Amino acid sequence: MHGRGIFEAEKRRALERLHKEGADDDIAGLIELLNGFDDYFTTSSCSGRVILISIPEIGAKEEAEFIAKWHRKVSKDEVLKAMGTWKDADGELWLMSQSPILHVSCASIEKAKQLLSLAIASGFKYSGIKSITMKRVMVEIMSTERMDVPVGKGGSDILQRTIPGFYRIEGELHARARQE
Amino acid sequence: MHGRGIFEAEKRRALERLHKEGADDDIAGLIELLNGFDDYFTTSSCSGRVILISIPEIGAKEEAEFIAKWHRKVSKDEVLKAMGTWKDADGELWLMSQSPILHVSCASIEKAKQLLSLAIASGFKYSGIKSITMKRVMVEIMSTERMDVPVGKGGSDILQRTIPGFYRIEGELHARARQE
Repeated sequence: MHGRGIFEAEKRRALERLHKEGADDDIAGLIELLNGFDDYFTTSSCSGRVILISIPEIGAKEEAEFIAKWHRKVSKDEVLKAMGTWKDADGELWLMSQSPILHVSCASIEKAKQLLSLAIASGFKYSGIKSITMKRVMVEIMSTERMDVPVGKGGSDILQRTIPGFYRIEGELHARARQE
Repeated sequence: MHGRGIFEAEKRRALERLHKEGADDDIAGLIELLNGFDDYFTTSSCSGRVILISIPEIGAKEEAEFIAKWHRKVSKDEVLKAMGTWKDADGELWLMSQSPILHVSCASIEKAKQLLSLAIASGFKYSGIKSITMKRVMVEIMSTERMDVPVGKGGSDILQRTIPGFYRIEGELHARARQE
């Protein structure tokens, strides 16, 4: 089996997996649209999320541990409650609002270029081609909308829970990432 | 002039510009190394920076205005002083620590793939191919180390200047991004 045959076999497997595992509601329509084209299929996706993550030291993301994950707007109280469960005396706690992300397998470099141009023109400026092989070209689609905030260090809350507008903006950011 | 000839002419112009404008000290060695290879040249670079930026509304980055920029570690007092000069009653103020970034023009897709693999394996996981034309393939090299923190809204300081460990972590993050 060569080139196109391999691509089509991989697409069938990806669609079976998608059918079984599903996708975030907010992004399901876009995924269906992309998978409707012969030259593309999606391999993973997230509609954007807010996470609280415990990191042993900056940069050591492999050893990071999720304290909480939300695929929706969150309230200040929810975030504070989740922060209260964190107790890592050596690590850091980060609150992050992450962009929607899509990985799209493309049948050729030409098709990848077209998708990439469209993604960047639509505001997903952190998009790029992540790998090129004989079998497929992988495009990652991401926007620049994000928040990466250190909120705890050495087991204690460094923001002292005094930030009135903070989590409200967080909610707005997440909402905005979804509009794009 | 075709393919390789255009690439070489563009490289000459880029090196002249670099010679005139210079590059950040911390990244000058890497740039020189890359430009030493026939198949690559750098078109822009930043060794990583800490910025305070005023944004009319989330996402409207085109209309953003720099309040301060540092290409080095910053102290809490420096950041607070710069924050004090900001007065946009409608906008938001964000403190960001940005990853080193490099744009490298590559003579072929094959050369771009090699550079991209090396960059990702070296920890610059946000790297990707941003454009492919007959003349060149552009690779963007970036790491995941960053901070994006809303610190002001409607002209006032939403963090209330109470965060003891905050700017220290900021300094560490910037130092870490440079180590990679």
